[in-house]
Amino acid sequence: MKSMEDFSEWYLWVVREGEFVDQRSPIKGFDVLLPWAYSIWEKIQNLFDSMLKEHGVSNFYFPLVIPRSLLEKEAEHFQGFVPEVAWVTHEGDKPLNEWLALRPTSETIMYYMFRLWIHSYRDLPFRVNQWCNIVRWETKATKPLIRTREVLWHECHTAHATRECAMREVKRSMDLYTKLFRQYLCLPFIILRRTELDKFPGADITYAFESVTKEGKILQIATTHLLGQNFSKVFGIKYKDAQGKDRLVWQTSWGFTTRLIGAMIMVHGDEYGAVLPPKVAPLQVVIVPIPMKGGPDVLEKAREVEKRLKELGLRVKVDDGPETPGFKFNKWELKGVPLRLEIGPRDLEKGCVTAARRDTHERIEIKENELHRVKEILEQIQKDLLRRAEEFFKDHITYATSLSEAKRILEEKGGFVKIDWCGSERCELKVKEEGVGEIRGYVEDEKPKGNCAVCGAKAKHVAYVGRAY
Amino acid sequence: MKSMEDFSEWYLWVVREGEFVDQRSPIKGFDVLLPWAYSIWEKIQNLFDSMLKEHGVSNFYFPLVIPRSLLEKEAEHFQGFVPEVAWVTHEGDKPLNEWLALRPTSETIMYYMFRLWIHSYRDLPFRVNQWCNIVRWETKATKPLIRTREVLWHECHTAHATRECAMREVKRSMDLYTKLFRQYLCLPFIILRRTELDKFPGADITYAFESVTKEGKILQIATTHLLGQNFSKVFGIKYKDAQGKDRLVWQTSWGFTTRLIGAMIMVHGDEYGAVLPPKVAPLQVVIVPIPMKGGPDVLEKAREVEKRLKELGLRVKVDDGPETPGFKFNKWELKGVPLRLEIGPRDLEKGCVTAARRDTHERIEIKENELHRVKEILEQIQKDLLRRAEEFFKDHITYATSLSEAKRILEEKGGFVKIDWCGSERCELKVKEEGVGEIRGYVEDEKPKGNCAVCGAKAKHVAYVGRAY
Repeated sequence: MKSMEDFSEWYLWVVREGEFVDQRSPIKGFDVLLPWAYSIWEKIQNLFDSMLKEHGVSNFYFPLVIPRSLLEKEAEHFQGFVPEVAWVTHEGDKPLNEWLALRPTSETIMYYMFRLWIHSYRDLPFRVNQWCNIVRWETKATKPLIRTREVLWHECHTAHATRECAMREVKRSMDLYTKLFRQYLCLPFIILRRTELDKFPGADITYAFESVTKEGKILQIATTHLLGQNFSKVFGIKYKDAQGKDRLVWQTSWGFTTRLIGAMIMVHGDEYGAVLPPKVAPLQVVIVPIPMKGGPDVLEKAREVEKRLKELGLRVKVDDGPETPGFKFNKWELKGVPLRLEIGPRDLEKGCVTAARRDTHERIEIKENELHRVKEILEQIQKDLLRRAEEFFKDHITYATSLSEAKRILEEKGGFVKIDWCGSERCELKVKEEGVGEIRGYVEDEKPKGNCAVCGAKAKHVAYVGRAY
Repeated sequence: MKSMEDFSEWYLWVVREGEFVDQRSPIKGFDVLLPWAYSIWEKIQNLFDSMLKEHGVSNFYFPLVIPRSLLEKEAEHFQGFVPEVAWVTHEGDKPLNEWLALRPTSETIMYYMFRLWIHSYRDLPFRVNQWCNIVRWETKATKPLIRTREVLWHECHTAHATRECAMREVKRSMDLYTKLFRQYLCLPFIILRRTELDKFPGADITYAFESVTKEGKILQIATTHLLGQNFSKVFGIKYKDAQGKDRLVWQTSWGFTTRLIGAMIMVHGDEYGAVLPPKVAPLQVVIVPIPMKGGPDVLEKAREVEKRLKELGLRVKVDDGPETPGFKFNKWELKGVPLRLEIGPRDLEKGCVTAARRDTHERIEIKENELHRVKEILEQIQKDLLRRAEEFFKDHITYATSLSEAKRILEEKGGFVKIDWCGSERCELKVKEEGVGEIRGYVEDEKPKGNCAVCGAKAKHVAYVGRAY
């Protein structure tokens, strides 16, 4: 157990002791993903990959390295990424003719190929996905799963005939993410349109999916960009329309990373450690036999229950290690296994097992011939996790009418503070300079109630202010 | 259709026109894997990943970059890889303190961590797997899927208490590979122990899985290394045995790459293109409707058949594009789809569909109410592919008693030529210098019949000589 008072310390404790990540690799910001975290990533991949395929997206694999000249083509994009780029300059002891960037994202290398593949309106919409590693040499403090220099992610890139089609794709990406985040990861979020200062380098519009951690900080968990024609112009990605006229395509790109695992820890965790949603937990049920000297064979019964739960399609295992039951309880609670089944001599006598919910610590007696209830309990946990996270999330969006009020709220309870905003960069910067927080963006159709909380001019948007990772 | 006379040209034609790989990326040797090839890779991954998990191997993810000092620790390993290493030297415009290698393989970065994880005999055996990209700056001519600078692969690394345990693991890896290559990919192979000159840098023993292409060249499709204690010595990977004494672990590493896809093309292909084994084909059945003006609605029937085959669990699709049936036949034959179903007005009348096997071009009439036969035919194709490939393979191992005979055979039909060999480096080099081919290794328990075919001294091994990719 560890208090969440010092949230950062608590988080590192969960990640380390729960065996999600090992940070002791020889290069800072390049952590080792341990099987527990990697297995969650595999589950996210499988779930989302099926959704993508159903949506008509195909998986490709593009080169890890991007020639400097290619990365430079879209000027804003290059300016945005160049401070974080890791450069390959030598092969053996020979200098390369041209420096190669480790991909920080794959727009440029993909769109170089799009030009070769897209010719006619019949080729559109064109959709590409890639699961891969990217490298961004973060200068901010790194944090396992949340901010690292190498990251595993998916990046989806699409091309369309018109701006409307591209915007429809943006909405589709939002639907797919919404389904994954809510139904599977139990992560509530709001979709904010980023301000002009804060959007993706090279995009017309950036939408960010933002969640709130238990400590009240804002955590971006995915982004979708309407790239417009910024890249198709410089890469010459054209199609012939039905009239045979050359037109530039409209593009979108969207992605999420292994940060999602960190997000689940930060949103669902408690002082006992991580709490994983059953749908992505590597192990859904752990069975802990509680033997008694001279008592009956509880291990045999544990194996029998394991077998029956496996037949129900559950991910389950008996912890038959030499440690004490108490040690095992702590270990699996820390790792976030949704449900524990205890089997002791008393349970045996009564013909039942004792279930303990990870999220509520509620104890439930289950009769041996009612083991199917385990499945129902897991479904209930999944629902309850989302409901509680949503309540917390809603409770952490507060309306303020002045910067001082906003600041006070952010200091006291965090989350998002909404303020009316004129939309100017000046006021956006002032919110930051005054130590309130950052304007993370706005919801496009949300109307302000009054005047700009910063300058008093007519408000244009309701800005969401918060302190972010 | 394309003659296989110029095999290299034929291969590039299949890969390009069959849409496996696009080589037009801006960096030589870094190709784009298109959905057709990537989907085969996904199938190989899924199949082998389940086998690994059943064998007790867990998936991790380790850093892409390795500090130079770490790569240098095992001297032979470093010497072997340094000419091919791509170096990251700058972050933004700042030079790094230490150059970082893009992993050419992950022994050094993994074993740095092994030291932190392995303490007691109870931690052994310790097994790690990783699916990732690696970079080796090949100086030889590159060839898509066969020799590229960036490669996707799996690498499995294990640590054991004794040499015997490690050797047992070597055998287990061979069993796993044998199952994957034979049952799923229909690839025959021989496992050769590499000569001292040719083994993996840093290994005690290297075993290579070698197949023979239709052009008679040797193609390595996987390797397993007994690393012995070479790495555990330099990385200090120790465990306390049951008596509390410190001992160094014994290690193995083994892997295969996306080259397996190229291998299937080169082993099963014909002048019509690729021939994919049904178990890993992205599409197992393509349905081509053959409409006739004023005739019945064959497309509707095609959809109905598609639905029923999907219910049988098959990967199937109707090609309802605007092209002619002939164009479609060529396209899907080139891509290697194992079975084509044609549905024309005549078939409709007779209440059947016409199946065409990709491997034999045999045409089979299937009654509409016997569609389950499609499954049986696919199973038959899978079996026949392996059988024919095995016959070819066996037919391409020839015994020769002199270098001149060996040379003649390799020039005339290729494959492997077996010669008795004294085991000396001098004779090994002579086989190469005289333009015969390379000694690719030997089978450990195969006894020579006479004297060394090179120097006439007492033979120690039967050497397998061939010309390899």
